[in-house]
Amino acid sequence: MEKIHSLLLKQKAYQSAITALHWDLETEAASKSKANIASSIGYLSGEAYSIFVNEEMISYIDNLDLNQLSALDQKVIKELKKDLDKIKVIPKEEFVAFQTLKANATNTWQEAKNTNNYSLFSPYLSQLIDYTKKFMAYRNEAKPLYDTILNDYEEGLNMKTLDHFFNLLKDELQASIKLVNENPLTLKKMPDHYGAGKQKKLAHDLAALVGFDFEAGVLKESEHPFTLGSDKNDVRITTHYYHHNLFSSIYSTIHEAGHAIYEQNISDEINDTIALGGGNCMSIHESQSRFYENLVGREYHFLKNIKPLIEKYFEAFKDYQVEDLYLHVNQAKSSLIRVEADELTYPFHIMIRYEVEKAIFNDNIDVALLPQLWNDLYDQYLGVRPTSDTDGILQDVHFSQALFGYFPSYALGSAYASQIYNTMQEKINVKQLIEDNDLSLIKDYLNEHIHQYGKALTSNEILIKATGKSFDPQYYIDYLKNKYQGIYQK
Amino acid sequence: MEKIHSLLLKQKAYQSAITALHWDLETEAASKSKANIASSIGYLSGEAYSIFVNEEMISYIDNLDLNQLSALDQKVIKELKKDLDKIKVIPKEEFVAFQTLKANATNTWQEAKNTNNYSLFSPYLSQLIDYTKKFMAYRNEAKPLYDTILNDYEEGLNMKTLDHFFNLLKDELQASIKLVNENPLTLKKMPDHYGAGKQKKLAHDLAALVGFDFEAGVLKESEHPFTLGSDKNDVRITTHYYHHNLFSSIYSTIHEAGHAIYEQNISDEINDTIALGGGNCMSIHESQSRFYENLVGREYHFLKNIKPLIEKYFEAFKDYQVEDLYLHVNQAKSSLIRVEADELTYPFHIMIRYEVEKAIFNDNIDVALLPQLWNDLYDQYLGVRPTSDTDGILQDVHFSQALFGYFPSYALGSAYASQIYNTMQEKINVKQLIEDNDLSLIKDYLNEHIHQYGKALTSNEILIKATGKSFDPQYYIDYLKNKYQGIYQK
Repeated sequence: MEKIHSLLLKQKAYQSAITALHWDLETEAASKSKANIASSIGYLSGEAYSIFVNEEMISYIDNLDLNQLSALDQKVIKELKKDLDKIKVIPKEEFVAFQTLKANATNTWQEAKNTNNYSLFSPYLSQLIDYTKKFMAYRNEAKPLYDTILNDYEEGLNMKTLDHFFNLLKDELQASIKLVNENPLTLKKMPDHYGAGKQKKLAHDLAALVGFDFEAGVLKESEHPFTLGSDKNDVRITTHYYHHNLFSSIYSTIHEAGHAIYEQNISDEINDTIALGGGNCMSIHESQSRFYENLVGREYHFLKNIKPLIEKYFEAFKDYQVEDLYLHVNQAKSSLIRVEADELTYPFHIMIRYEVEKAIFNDNIDVALLPQLWNDLYDQYLGVRPTSDTDGILQDVHFSQALFGYFPSYALGSAYASQIYNTMQEKINVKQLIEDNDLSLIKDYLNEHIHQYGKALTSNEILIKATGKSFDPQYYIDYLKNKYQGIYQK
Repeated sequence: MEKIHSLLLKQKAYQSAITALHWDLETEAASKSKANIASSIGYLSGEAYSIFVNEEMISYIDNLDLNQLSALDQKVIKELKKDLDKIKVIPKEEFVAFQTLKANATNTWQEAKNTNNYSLFSPYLSQLIDYTKKFMAYRNEAKPLYDTILNDYEEGLNMKTLDHFFNLLKDELQASIKLVNENPLTLKKMPDHYGAGKQKKLAHDLAALVGFDFEAGVLKESEHPFTLGSDKNDVRITTHYYHHNLFSSIYSTIHEAGHAIYEQNISDEINDTIALGGGNCMSIHESQSRFYENLVGREYHFLKNIKPLIEKYFEAFKDYQVEDLYLHVNQAKSSLIRVEADELTYPFHIMIRYEVEKAIFNDNIDVALLPQLWNDLYDQYLGVRPTSDTDGILQDVHFSQALFGYFPSYALGSAYASQIYNTMQEKINVKQLIEDNDLSLIKDYLNEHIHQYGKALTSNEILIKATGKSFDPQYYIDYLKNKYQGIYQK
């Protein structure tokens, strides 16, 4: 175990460097420097790969007598074996080329999005898909390729489960979608300009308020908000400041802070194993970010409590009631942009991406046809149609990082969050805690029942720890129905 | 040569990562993350070391037939040999430990400076000195250890040259120092508060005005302003915003921009060799930063031209004359802080550090006695005495990075700048160009005569290219005497 740990420490040194380069690339690197940084990332990823995938590591792992290990060490070995099996089938040159490609693809995606030029990005997308298919095929698993992909995001997840989940949402939420689209709220117009400097200070205050630890993290700006963590003491989040929309940065800050609070509160013991450090699967991770963003951040009393803080930077809000803010941030309507979508239509954005990915991996659709498919699906699921690829297939960063299979986690995470909230409400009256502006007990509960475990439990075990039962989508459906009936049938 | 180049490319990938981690550490990393980042830097430095110092590289270099190489390749090999000879005598464990120590020492120095606690930093300083002595001793050169150190900053530089140079300055400038201290100017008081946000925008505008290329660089904040470059297309500079002092950030921005303009304008051919990329020795580098800071930035007409820009962010300056600004930024007076010092007393701050370093390396003084020595030297050379170590020996970052031997470059650089200015005045009338706000021709001249060559020429060859002769300190002495007599004997 000691030898394995010392190899993991070396790998972690590379990981810190790669993380720093990515962070730099996406938050501040100068345009002419990006190609060099991307190639450094590629090279160092190869070195990190070699430390992990080699005879030495494989023989250490194979020769261990699992029975002589502590329960925690057994989990470490199980996790390492799982990762090794995935990665050792990939030739190193291909692995390195793929890392460099991803870094370059992300740069190109940003340019393509800014200039509404899908054809700039599509050759990269095509290569990313080909690599992904090839890597999955190397594993030679007895299931559809897209199931292998999904399973990497959450053990046991497959198309059968997701088809069932999404069909249920479609059936149950159709009436609510109709309700909100046909009965738009009459809202007080929000102020139309917000300086970036003030937004930045507000974002800092809000992140601290919900529990982000600035001694173990950084908050910065990037094109697309994200969280990046290489260790519980080094968790970075970003947001984006729009001059015309204050609530975009407020909610992306709270969302990313939710991810970061998770990472920052993994137990030291688990963090030190390296292999089990970091958050659990992406669905559990998203359950935490969306818990903070929606179940805390969009609550009437949370808004009531932060209103004075908002007024500190933007005096115009003194002329608004809490109710005005509440309705503004909870209005629902079919729209084009996922990250700006309300909670009700949100899962439909996810279903669209899920259908697009099934078309890519099950039906081998030509990348040239994806914008059309994307737009058709928006028509079909939400009754709206993008007029540009910037607002269509180019809107999200994920494809450019080959994060296929990631999107369903957002919908699952939202559903897990509702289930977790339900149990917390019974045990600690979370609604009252929000009203009392006492968020620390909420954080403590999540720390104790979810965060501390890192990857040492499966997602199902975490759900059972936190809620006493396996996944049940009904909490999510009931939550959405009740919330939007409450707002729209007043 | 191809094999050597491919090893250098690998080394450069590490260097990019190490640079990114340093940049991160010094500009934004969270406090709890710093130890981990420092240890990653240490580990990766070791890997970079191994790529450079190994049998393969040594045998490639030793087996090359120099006569069959291009003139440029011959220089590459000469440079690599020089570096290898310095570094291969250091055992890898010690090299790595030293890199980690430096990263931790810099963090501790910052804390020690903030809390005026020299004893927090002194154990690190002591170790840094010991490592430096040990590494220099490994080289077993037939000269005093401090000469070996100085020679690493500029080929051929030694205590004999510096003693001569500094004694000349002491003799020639004493009367001017007396003049300025005994005849303080009557100045219009400057506004006393400057918001950091506006300073930041102004710094950005000024850097761009003097010629910093934002497509190949980043401007950010740090405790102590610095320039960091791993490639001509990736040159980062920092400044520091003080609420009570606008001109501190203005001049540190222009100073660091001067360094960056140098790095960004090395020719592609030289940059691609990697080994000869980056600026020449530190004295030449400082000649460029101080050229921009002082010979351009503190000129009456430069101030006249940037006054409208300053007023754009700080309206209060509308009530000031250009003359008020000119006198404010050119007033001279013995003081405690090097980076805030005027041009006239500046070299005396350097002489003090030079004496301190001679005490460290020639006389093996106990680190506990350094604050006292520092303060005594300030008394003796400038007639002022620090009342805290924060304003005394802890004021500069250099010792914490083991940059012993670096300080003399600042004074030499200033002197080189005067000599270069003199030739430029004859050839392109630089004074008139500043008056016409046409800084691009100044940049073109420096690009052509100095910047493009990188490390492909010696500092003496550069001086001859740019001025037609070797170093002559008299230009500097005349410049300082004339300038301050002009201001103080009006």
